[in-house]
Amino acid sequence: MNNFADCLQRRIDELQNPSCLGLDPLLSYLPKSWQREFDFSDDDDIYLALRRYCFDLLDATADIIPAIKLQMAYFEQYGTAGISAVRDVIAEAKALGMLVIVDGKRNDIGSTASAYSNAYLTKTSFSADALTVNAYLGSDGIRPFLEKCDENGKGVFILCRTSNPSAGELQDLELSDGRLVYEAMADLISEWGEDLAGEEGISSVGAVVGATWPEQAKSLRERMPRSFFLIPGFGAQGGTASDAIAGFDKNGRAAIVNASRSLMQAWKKQGMKHDDFAAACRLEAVAMRDSLREALSL
Amino acid sequence: MNNFADCLQRRIDELQNPSCLGLDPLLSYLPKSWQREFDFSDDDDIYLALRRYCFDLLDATADIIPAIKLQMAYFEQYGTAGISAVRDVIAEAKALGMLVIVDGKRNDIGSTASAYSNAYLTKTSFSADALTVNAYLGSDGIRPFLEKCDENGKGVFILCRTSNPSAGELQDLELSDGRLVYEAMADLISEWGEDLAGEEGISSVGAVVGATWPEQAKSLRERMPRSFFLIPGFGAQGGTASDAIAGFDKNGRAAIVNASRSLMQAWKKQGMKHDDFAAACRLEAVAMRDSLREALSL
Repeated sequence: MNNFADCLQRRIDELQNPSCLGLDPLLSYLPKSWQREFDFSDDDDIYLALRRYCFDLLDATADIIPAIKLQMAYFEQYGTAGISAVRDVIAEAKALGMLVIVDGKRNDIGSTASAYSNAYLTKTSFSADALTVNAYLGSDGIRPFLEKCDENGKGVFILCRTSNPSAGELQDLELSDGRLVYEAMADLISEWGEDLAGEEGISSVGAVVGATWPEQAKSLRERMPRSFFLIPGFGAQGGTASDAIAGFDKNGRAAIVNASRSLMQAWKKQGMKHDDFAAACRLEAVAMRDSLREALSL
Repeated sequence: MNNFADCLQRRIDELQNPSCLGLDPLLSYLPKSWQREFDFSDDDDIYLALRRYCFDLLDATADIIPAIKLQMAYFEQYGTAGISAVRDVIAEAKALGMLVIVDGKRNDIGSTASAYSNAYLTKTSFSADALTVNAYLGSDGIRPFLEKCDENGKGVFILCRTSNPSAGELQDLELSDGRLVYEAMADLISEWGEDLAGEEGISSVGAVVGATWPEQAKSLRERMPRSFFLIPGFGAQGGTASDAIAGFDKNGRAAIVNASRSLMQAWKKQGMKHDDFAAACRLEAVAMRDSLREALSL
């Protein structure tokens, strides 16, 4: 059985690129010219248009980016059309050799967490390589995911310190033992991941640690020396390459940096035509890769 | 514009029944005889079978139960077939006069929370009356939901103290100011709900407070005097009627108690045939209603 952390780290090493393409599609991101071909008031056409948009981005980057992150909210808002697109995008990304992280931040009591782990970490229509989860409910809401990681070589990324401005409202509250809430979460994540490390010495039980908080990322790496970090917030949310690498381990490994809007909408920054969004995404992906390489001195 | 809390409380008053039918379907819950009609290896048939199972439960209870709670995980595990069933079940429940709570425990940064609120709290395919959400990310992940509550007369139930055995691992940690984590969450929920109270004096920004923790529910009611409580954990998880009513306000209002497995699988307890699951569900729903009425001295 493969280990998720091994697969992801080896693909990162191979491409010398610890970055992740975030797919958070909105119909307004699609070129206006597509409205000649697709009717955005028709569910079948929305499905086909979202699918083509994502496929174009995959085709443009699959040889240089190791993984994608699908943000479920953006697909769910298009109902069954969006969900059908998710199924196809996961299959296509895998066929192109990319690893697939579903960003669903799922969470529930044990019996229901089992149903979520069946949905995303088995061989169903949504068979991802990893899923983001929220551990507010504690270990019995997490254990079903860990079992699937073990059985099926999958991974989870558990929310620890998120990238958004108000992350600290709950996460930074100080506990009576001196730790902050997100540090207590980090200790749980580290513990849950103990038995799921692969040959590369990295655990498939990862943590979401925002690129926008480099100070916290650095101290969190000390608390979770072996966890894979998923680092969102690069680009549109303001995180730079040097912010993002704060969470990498001392060998410059065990972390992947996600960018969504800055890659999907790179045509704006690159001064290119909207129709060339995929080519622009590739250019921006190369720039992101090179900036991470430089920051990591690769 | 309707206010969600008003609509729900008034329907509860009308039926004198503060209970909620939880739909957490598994194919194994469907009568064996249905396998003559449906092929469970075929997506179209899974969709039709899940739809019929839920419709039968709705038909059996719509005149006595005010609301349903759809647990998304159970539908998501059946891929697009399950999601198509969600769409139809929501529409059917509304046509039968039931309010619809989608239990998705969604959570994300602001831009993505907007996409989730578009998915569930507008007039899309999944147009619920309320959604459960997780506020680990703080207020900027919650505000998009509050806006939709205000604009569209919808509601949210924010996880506070959950019903599962390990709920306390994070939620019960003591803060340096003396509060527990779930109490800090309760204070945020109370604050977020201030502007969303309706004519009944109850806020559409509710809280999830497990029936399995009556002590906490009682003290949480003091912290959140005007929040609607969604109380899961009745029945299969061990919560009794007297446990469940601990979170009601002093007038025996502002709360709804959910049961899922104990209603869906009532045929076992009632000693009835599997084929009669819907009739058994009605019997159990009447018993649940009567036990809540008695506990509340209605």
